[in-house]
Amino acid sequence: MAASGARRDALEELIEALRRLPGVGVKSAQRMAYHLLQHDRPAAQAIAGALTHAMQSVRHCTRCHTFTEAELCSTCADPRRDARLLAVVESPADQAALERSGGYKGLYFVLMGRLSPLDGMGTVEIGAERLLARAADGVVEEVVLATGFTAEGELTAQALAAALKARGLKVTRLARGVPAGSDLEYVDLSTIAYALHDRR
Amino acid sequence: MAASGARRDALEELIEALRRLPGVGVKSAQRMAYHLLQHDRPAAQAIAGALTHAMQSVRHCTRCHTFTEAELCSTCADPRRDARLLAVVESPADQAALERSGGYKGLYFVLMGRLSPLDGMGTVEIGAERLLARAADGVVEEVVLATGFTAEGELTAQALAAALKARGLKVTRLARGVPAGSDLEYVDLSTIAYALHDRR
Repeated sequence: MAASGARRDALEELIEALRRLPGVGVKSAQRMAYHLLQHDRPAAQAIAGALTHAMQSVRHCTRCHTFTEAELCSTCADPRRDARLLAVVESPADQAALERSGGYKGLYFVLMGRLSPLDGMGTVEIGAERLLARAADGVVEEVVLATGFTAEGELTAQALAAALKARGLKVTRLARGVPAGSDLEYVDLSTIAYALHDRR
Repeated sequence: MAASGARRDALEELIEALRRLPGVGVKSAQRMAYHLLQHDRPAAQAIAGALTHAMQSVRHCTRCHTFTEAELCSTCADPRRDARLLAVVESPADQAALERSGGYKGLYFVLMGRLSPLDGMGTVEIGAERLLARAADGVVEEVVLATGFTAEGELTAQALAAALKARGLKVTRLARGVPAGSDLEYVDLSTIAYALHDRR
């Protein structure tokens, strides 16, 4: 018998699996599966191998909660970082952006999310208790809230600021204002209003 | 030593591997990797397994060139299909669309692409020789060109029509016209022009 009959075949299984990637619908999953099968089987093997390897070896840093393969991530384990400063970021991508700026030498706490009650992201999901314990290690003197300036990022910063201040910690927030290199003409009105209010 | 140092880590390796998927840039690949690691490790295992399984078991049907796990795909192996009709389509997705219409009972030839000289897709890449050999089996009476009505699909249909007719085969093309359920008011002008020209 050549026909595969009722059994779900390997191609359908692959398309359904790829749909579990965030932002990938059935059309994209089909296109990915056809492309890999037709044009790039080595890429398929590389992706399968990298997925298996990452799921086996990547875990969370016990201090800052970012992804790492060791007990401590390389940043937390670096004795040259200033342990008195603790920046709170939403994701490893945001942490990388701060690092690229070259202006921050302290340590991090990575929330791996942000408060979003409608999506089921509450204080438990973003590890607020873990942050409070981490910030109360006796070494941290200032917590820099570096969550995004979106509605959810602001909500997260406000909630964490209240909890951290209640424990007697100094809490700051990244400055809001006109982006470097911007013509005022093209900056949105609320940014200008904040930049006026926070003028120095 | 806790820090991983210079060695490329498993997370970076995963992000780079995911970028090899069509349509996935570095931001999407990061988002996918973080999502899988943080929220859906079972999905990562499912994708890795499905990729490995599909690359091992999926090959091309020896008659119609579509993806299959057997020597012949289930359509080519089905004795109830009308072997006198051969529809030429660009992809398994297009074949599935024709099947869903319920109006076609013949066999298929799947090009797995379309002529696109600028992208390096020539007659060799779309298997034109294989199609000509397939259509000349002595059973096929009519080749229905069902490539897309895009510039590249039309180019493909024209080139294949010339080669097939030169071998004495009857060649037809899907009708162009106003989509079922459309108000004329909202149909684009070139479609209306074609529908007028091909009126019956």
